[in-house]
Amino acid sequence: MHELFSVLPPGEALASFARGCSPIERSEIVLLDAAAGRVLAVDVIAAETLPSFARSTMDGYAVRAADTHGASEQSPAYLRLAGDVPTGVVPDRPVGAREAIRTHTGAMLPPGADAVVIVEDTNPVPGADEVEVLAAAAPGENVLAVGEDIEQGAVALRAGRRLRAADVGGLAALGVTRVTVRERPRVAIVSTGDEVVPADSRPGGAQVRDVNAATVAAVVRDAGGVAIPCGIAPDEPRALEAALRAAIDGADLLVLSAGSSVSARDLTAETVRRLGAPGVLVHGIAIKPGKPTVLAMCDGTPVVGLPGNPASALVVAWRIVRPLLRLLGGESPSFAAERAGELDAILDGAVPSRPGREDYVPCTLTTDESGDVRARPIFGASNLIFTLVRADGLIAVPLDRSGVGAGERVRVIVPS
Amino acid sequence: MHELFSVLPPGEALASFARGCSPIERSEIVLLDAAAGRVLAVDVIAAETLPSFARSTMDGYAVRAADTHGASEQSPAYLRLAGDVPTGVVPDRPVGAREAIRTHTGAMLPPGADAVVIVEDTNPVPGADEVEVLAAAAPGENVLAVGEDIEQGAVALRAGRRLRAADVGGLAALGVTRVTVRERPRVAIVSTGDEVVPADSRPGGAQVRDVNAATVAAVVRDAGGVAIPCGIAPDEPRALEAALRAAIDGADLLVLSAGSSVSARDLTAETVRRLGAPGVLVHGIAIKPGKPTVLAMCDGTPVVGLPGNPASALVVAWRIVRPLLRLLGGESPSFAAERAGELDAILDGAVPSRPGREDYVPCTLTTDESGDVRARPIFGASNLIFTLVRADGLIAVPLDRSGVGAGERVRVIVPS
Repeated sequence: MHELFSVLPPGEALASFARGCSPIERSEIVLLDAAAGRVLAVDVIAAETLPSFARSTMDGYAVRAADTHGASEQSPAYLRLAGDVPTGVVPDRPVGAREAIRTHTGAMLPPGADAVVIVEDTNPVPGADEVEVLAAAAPGENVLAVGEDIEQGAVALRAGRRLRAADVGGLAALGVTRVTVRERPRVAIVSTGDEVVPADSRPGGAQVRDVNAATVAAVVRDAGGVAIPCGIAPDEPRALEAALRAAIDGADLLVLSAGSSVSARDLTAETVRRLGAPGVLVHGIAIKPGKPTVLAMCDGTPVVGLPGNPASALVVAWRIVRPLLRLLGGESPSFAAERAGELDAILDGAVPSRPGREDYVPCTLTTDESGDVRARPIFGASNLIFTLVRADGLIAVPLDRSGVGAGERVRVIVPS
Repeated sequence: MHELFSVLPPGEALASFARGCSPIERSEIVLLDAAAGRVLAVDVIAAETLPSFARSTMDGYAVRAADTHGASEQSPAYLRLAGDVPTGVVPDRPVGAREAIRTHTGAMLPPGADAVVIVEDTNPVPGADEVEVLAAAAPGENVLAVGEDIEQGAVALRAGRRLRAADVGGLAALGVTRVTVRERPRVAIVSTGDEVVPADSRPGGAQVRDVNAATVAAVVRDAGGVAIPCGIAPDEPRALEAALRAAIDGADLLVLSAGSSVSARDLTAETVRRLGAPGVLVHGIAIKPGKPTVLAMCDGTPVVGLPGNPASALVVAWRIVRPLLRLLGGESPSFAAERAGELDAILDGAVPSRPGREDYVPCTLTTDESGDVRARPIFGASNLIFTLVRADGLIAVPLDRSGVGAGERVRVIVPS
């Protein structure tokens, strides 16, 4: 068997793999309270016009703008005070010619009024039911017109939107408190390797605890998926195949963390091949750490085989599994999603790389006096578990670069 | 009563307010599965040394480095093949002088061996129990030494850390599957205003639905708090006070969204004053939108009074409530937390501002050909609910700037 016979750039591997993946179609209804972070399954159409009535945006006096024409401190206009409409109350009379009605931020504008003079531009007239207006108001001034926010029938939010706090507010404004969202993708997680034992057990002589199951589950949950831990499968063909078949059943995505030796990896790829057609599509991506990644499609279910090394597994989970989950979850591309967990920084010290491969180098982050973020690479044992724990993020060296020099701007991923 | 008698810069207001707030002390034990995103309540000390045995980091041959001294393609060294130690198996014999034992990535190094020659630097010798070594190995080469990851007794993770995927992996590696974390801060959320009705009801003539309760709850949950919706309180002194007293009972933070008119805001501030000592500390911050913000401390419980305008409420929830929740939740400052939901962009078009005030301007975001993010401000009705929905983020104009010019680099907040 050929190891790594087709090493693709990660972006290319992901894009070609993603073309064969379809978003899950299952949806569910959640209350507005639980809607933030979920992906809309349908367009939300505004059932009402907002605002449904003209409102004052300031505290002051509702007037006919024409009645304030030419008003100034030198030459005030005097309007008859014809009432007070508190916020939340329907006015009981219109504003007539040369009249003013006291209004408040958010209050309904009385009929006849087309502008609001702010209270700071007025003076009460002692002993008279009059208000002195010291500035002219233009028609529409300090007024929120009917429909200025959204018109009935307009698309308020499109299917595929991952709902943010502001979106949830928009749904509340429209009275949408039951929201149809996509189900979260179900991700079966299997670790493999004869040397791997569960995290809650004590490793024997040459064994190690399962690190990747916990890390991958955290990335999956953070990306909006449901992590389904399926335990540890041995490096034995029949038992491994049985474990993978049990795990993939009912899953929208199978993520397995391969054994770390070449023979274990070969066995994993071989077993994935037998899980379903067409089988392994990509075996090896141009990324460091993370090269021995397997991408497969088995009878309609995508499978990602992560390298066993914890640093590799985290980088590939972030670079491949996370965007794949957004796709499977039916999420439309957005800045919020794509740039989440990334930041720009200035590199403190040079990072060597090799063109044709994306490099991820652990780093610490600080802010300098000018407020810029500075990333300092952590060299040496970059593939250790606690190097990742001590790191604030990972410097991403683009595919086409032979390293990045000190002082250059880099993108840093900050996996949460 | 004086409206906005002490308008502080937001950072200063937050810092001085935060000095009076203490992290909640309650902790709970969660399983590793539920630990990501939670804040560690205690230092985690490594109970073991990792790795606990010397391991090969490559597939190849475990050797005594001295036996490969001077080996090259021209002058190979020949070592007797003395066995094969699969990953997960304890070697049953040491590597003797001029011997090699087959090893695999992650396998325990046999006693006597101090280096691994990678398989690519070797040739089998047909018909002989020998391996031809084509390159010298230095002592320690391709070997992960005992304790190279972490030493027993070292602090693996400090109290105050919000656990990321990598950290959860570190805990798994150490066998820590029950994790002592701080309880999530409980945040009571009250909306006020006679014009405000619940999102699931139909507003009468001059009424509007409660937008802020949903938005604030989403921000609170995203920041790791427990949102406790406490409904809508009327603009009537006794009823408002009773509602706030009921809400603050048992809460770690009370967030209320004030009525939008000046009189309603004054009533809210006055009522908060009566809730407990010392009462209102800040009334007004130098931020747009969001100036009429109230920060208060009532008998030990912090209270944030948000402006009623939805755009103001979102900005202040992001700028003030979110960092306050991190503090109350016992989280140590970190880049992951502080820069989450922010990105750097190049401004497309100028944004005017006024020095002495932080401005937040809705914008759309795109990526240009060179991969830079460009932020285009959305002018006009910046305080509308659906302007926020349509925006990708909000450009943050720093306090000391009188606007930002086209082509300048700006920070954009992308509230999730």
